[in-house]
Amino acid sequence: MDVQQLFSARGRAGADPELAIILAGPPPGTLGMTGGFPNASTFPSEELTEIATRLVTDEPGLALQYGPSAGLPSFREYLVARTAKLQGREPASDELMVTSGGMECIDLLCRSLLDPGDDVAVEAPTYLGAIMAFKDYGAVQTGVPMDADGIDVDAFAERLASGYRPKFLYTIPEFQNPSGRTMTLERRRALVDVCRSHGVLIVEDVAYKELSFDGTQLPSLWSLGPDVVVQAGTFSKIFCPGTRLGWAVGPAALIAQLASAKGGTDQCAGALSQRLVEEYGRAGLFGKRLPHTRALYESHWVALSAALTRHMPEGVSWSEPTGGMFTWLRMPEGLDSRALRPAATQAGVAYVPGAPFYVEAGGANEMRLSYSSLGEVQLGEAAERLAGVIEAALVTAAR
Amino acid sequence: MDVQQLFSARGRAGADPELAIILAGPPPGTLGMTGGFPNASTFPSEELTEIATRLVTDEPGLALQYGPSAGLPSFREYLVARTAKLQGREPASDELMVTSGGMECIDLLCRSLLDPGDDVAVEAPTYLGAIMAFKDYGAVQTGVPMDADGIDVDAFAERLASGYRPKFLYTIPEFQNPSGRTMTLERRRALVDVCRSHGVLIVEDVAYKELSFDGTQLPSLWSLGPDVVVQAGTFSKIFCPGTRLGWAVGPAALIAQLASAKGGTDQCAGALSQRLVEEYGRAGLFGKRLPHTRALYESHWVALSAALTRHMPEGVSWSEPTGGMFTWLRMPEGLDSRALRPAATQAGVAYVPGAPFYVEAGGANEMRLSYSSLGEVQLGEAAERLAGVIEAALVTAAR
Repeated sequence: MDVQQLFSARGRAGADPELAIILAGPPPGTLGMTGGFPNASTFPSEELTEIATRLVTDEPGLALQYGPSAGLPSFREYLVARTAKLQGREPASDELMVTSGGMECIDLLCRSLLDPGDDVAVEAPTYLGAIMAFKDYGAVQTGVPMDADGIDVDAFAERLASGYRPKFLYTIPEFQNPSGRTMTLERRRALVDVCRSHGVLIVEDVAYKELSFDGTQLPSLWSLGPDVVVQAGTFSKIFCPGTRLGWAVGPAALIAQLASAKGGTDQCAGALSQRLVEEYGRAGLFGKRLPHTRALYESHWVALSAALTRHMPEGVSWSEPTGGMFTWLRMPEGLDSRALRPAATQAGVAYVPGAPFYVEAGGANEMRLSYSSLGEVQLGEAAERLAGVIEAALVTAAR
Repeated sequence: MDVQQLFSARGRAGADPELAIILAGPPPGTLGMTGGFPNASTFPSEELTEIATRLVTDEPGLALQYGPSAGLPSFREYLVARTAKLQGREPASDELMVTSGGMECIDLLCRSLLDPGDDVAVEAPTYLGAIMAFKDYGAVQTGVPMDADGIDVDAFAERLASGYRPKFLYTIPEFQNPSGRTMTLERRRALVDVCRSHGVLIVEDVAYKELSFDGTQLPSLWSLGPDVVVQAGTFSKIFCPGTRLGWAVGPAALIAQLASAKGGTDQCAGALSQRLVEEYGRAGLFGKRLPHTRALYESHWVALSAALTRHMPEGVSWSEPTGGMFTWLRMPEGLDSRALRPAATQAGVAYVPGAPFYVEAGGANEMRLSYSSLGEVQLGEAAERLAGVIEAALVTAAR
């Protein structure tokens, strides 16, 4: 039997190979600035040991059992309070649910909202996993331009005024993946207004929100427009990815639908993970640990930024993140980050090419650099190696 | 904004409310024979405490980090060896992957194989979660009759001979959910032959396979026909559900596609859970603990079986499981298990009505009884209460 003959249309279309490359990790022998993997030194292993021991011993019937699709009641209560505290607005208990990470939340949203042919607006560039998910559900994706202040709301408003009606706009307001940019407060307000008046739902991905270098946070889009925003959050970057946990906050009818859809995928997020994060949070450990995490990434960025400034040839520019894990590097027109990859591997450095982050043409001369995993010295070395690769390509191009 | 107006066709269709009722647990004050929840006393909490402590302390960079979509290499190796030992056939390393539970495996199969309008064959009755998943992907489902020996292969062969061509047949060969029936070895061989000759893929759900009362196992369909079978397994019933882990074994091209699809849902199963199960298994703890689990469920069944025999009125019959968690009870024609639910709740007993387990009409006078959660004495009491409800209904019907 040739099983490939049995594949569905979406099975035949397959996934963007770039994601598999990222998840497989950087090639051996290279300094990897590829994945959005959090730095393992930020994982709360000591605290977890104590909590896990307690949970598994004291409440196996809860922590090791199936749970409701929307999440364990006590964990949802904790998340409601946490959201109220961090975002200045308290969701009702039926406006919040637990997901198996941020990406699963996006998948549940796709299931619940997208029919083939529906329009989805995304930032240009945006998160590769989201692009793949929307494509997988047959959506027609349109890129909305960005600048250093985040998404270009005027450009989006113009499109809407001319009749464009996406089911939703997907945005990552803070330290965006891949660009490292943050949407200003003015833009946030304008975006909520525009979307509200045109009936466009906003899907707000806050994966990096709590990772500002200085510990401050701008108001979430959800807090500004709870009627038109559904927020997807994750504990992968502020706790650890290995527990696969996230949340969705949004209009109650949509949350109910997402929970119902979850009954048909993994049925429920892992109860042990939920109780781990809940106990960790209730003990005040996020507040204790996050400052260290932020300081770590800031020190990484400072090192990378300095090395880029020192080594990069003229005509190369990059974004200036104020948090998170990414900067977005642009080479002179004509250079192609995909074509340069073999030379980079040869030189012992790895990045993610820019083109896959765009739903339309573009990004060939751009690339995403992650500074989460490598230490300061390694980042300096990686920047120097990358600069050498780009310089050599410029010399070749000039011939 | 009315978000419900934005729902996709599948969002508007919604899920079968029965699943939510099951996941929410039995009504307060009732003796619940509803969910397929494993008995919490079978959870290996002591062993887990030791393993979790070690993992979190020694290898946070692995156990708490993202991992490959197909699963952590060491865990996959362990699963390959485990499958070889238990099923007498060793999958190649690219014929096995890790999933976030058995239900997620079914979802990945749907994504990879089903276009709207495709045919899927299922046992009549079959697992409610699978029915929902297939429906969610727009499949046209056909029920294949069963008897005490499992699926009626001759009936299925006849349909195939007359031109019927489902994308796949979904079957639960052991202690089937909901019927408690087990497919005989003869039927297994015949089913593989028939499907092979007609090019029909078999999706084999082995959720309960290792829970025979006497510890024996019939050959898996996958071991009999690795070219035409993809097997979905889960650790929810033999370890615990709270870690959300399962596996898929099947043709390499299909496994590669499932792993690719997983990149768009939860990206990877929880690494901590994977390492927990791996260490648990490598320490030989499945072999140590499963005999106790089997003995527990057998003692439950013996108690329930005796109570049913003692209390049920004439005309009521039930299946005789040799493992697993379920028996399937049939009342005289004319009684309706859904209609009887309020009376049952009133009497302090809960079950799952039979009709939702059928893709076509049927099952109104049937119900699923789970004996996993309640103890022996409670099961006796539950059976007596249920018998009272049925008897009262028979009296009313006879008027």
